[in-house]
Amino acid sequence: MTHAHPPKVLGVLGGMGPAATLDFLAKLQAATPAAREQDHLRVLVDINPQVAAGDGGYEAAGPGLAAMAAGLRDAGAQVLAIACNTAHLHADAVRASGLPLVDLIETAGLAARAQSAERVGVLGVGEALALYRRAFSHQAIEAVTLDDHEQVEFMALLYRIKHGDLGPASRQTMAALAHRLVGKGAQVVVAGCTEVPLVLAAADLAVPFIDATEALARRCVAVCLEG
Amino acid sequence: MTHAHPPKVLGVLGGMGPAATLDFLAKLQAATPAAREQDHLRVLVDINPQVAAGDGGYEAAGPGLAAMAAGLRDAGAQVLAIACNTAHLHADAVRASGLPLVDLIETAGLAARAQSAERVGVLGVGEALALYRRAFSHQAIEAVTLDDHEQVEFMALLYRIKHGDLGPASRQTMAALAHRLVGKGAQVVVAGCTEVPLVLAAADLAVPFIDATEALARRCVAVCLEG
Repeated sequence: MTHAHPPKVLGVLGGMGPAATLDFLAKLQAATPAAREQDHLRVLVDINPQVAAGDGGYEAAGPGLAAMAAGLRDAGAQVLAIACNTAHLHADAVRASGLPLVDLIETAGLAARAQSAERVGVLGVGEALALYRRAFSHQAIEAVTLDDHEQVEFMALLYRIKHGDLGPASRQTMAALAHRLVGKGAQVVVAGCTEVPLVLAAADLAVPFIDATEALARRCVAVCLEG
Repeated sequence: MTHAHPPKVLGVLGGMGPAATLDFLAKLQAATPAAREQDHLRVLVDINPQVAAGDGGYEAAGPGLAAMAAGLRDAGAQVLAIACNTAHLHADAVRASGLPLVDLIETAGLAARAQSAERVGVLGVGEALALYRRAFSHQAIEAVTLDDHEQVEFMALLYRIKHGDLGPASRQTMAALAHRLVGKGAQVVVAGCTEVPLVLAAADLAVPFIDATEALARRCVAVCLEG
């Protein structure tokens, strides 16, 4: 392919978790129109599984994420993405690098709105669900979330996935949780955590499935190819 | 896990090709003893599919690879690896960054030697085969390679793989080429190109298979955890 402008270099803040980052990178490659190897984007990736591992968890990860963003910028990144929904708590700290951030939550929200859905189910951790509720509130979309005891089950499943358990039991449990959202009126289900699409696919659901990771990948390719 | 020393940050020169880099990163995660997400290594990755795409190909990629190595060092990498056999032409240019390089060719050679094989088949591009011959010459190992017309077939297959064709036809052709090496006396077959293990596995062969990518991943984990 010939590009009117040279493609931009993408910087990826990853590692939260490590397998989800590789899922994002694979979807990025799949979304790239590449006739030859060199048509793929240059991507600088910081896989940092320790950034949210301190006592304060994701709440306290702002300075670490800001440092990762600055490091990617200094290494040559021109556009940033974070391969983790929850880390978007600190989207502003990442934007302080001066680089544009392709926002995962906003991207997933746009994809949900494109489905003309009024009630959108979201599978994600508590902090990410709050970000989705805020994004949806500007779009006249109601977020459908799990009941508290189901959310506890989701979190337990999430840690099993992060531990590498991507087998049939994890897939069945995730599908059952997604079906609960449909039972509560969700017309669309958003994978609002990058571990979710590791064990859940569109074929598992009777309603449209929005893989936020894939939506982010497609949008990053579009933004970087704009040059 | 508790480490006596903090694990070292690994820098990966990748993109040659992009899918092979993700294969390496997945094998790195699989090789890491991780009870929790934060036990995974911090890895800085430069996926640069353009570095060997100029007129001079890999021969002319030395300055580009040296710049990638310096960039990874400046971003915080403490140990380097190159997820491409052929790019090891420029191992010295990468070592000029001042960081230790976990050498893929050397690692595969050690794995071959550990099999006590005297005749080792290697599937790789011409420049990489020359590197393997040089490494084996110090180990009393004879490199078994394809005949010229088979090497042409290998290169054509390689470009199909780099174009995303990982289907049954690619797998069958790669297995047939590996069997040719066994027919020529190879007691072990080395995947001497990071695209090879995308379509060839131990189960496809009657002799031991050395996935150089996987061997590199295991050695990088060991080196980084030494702290």
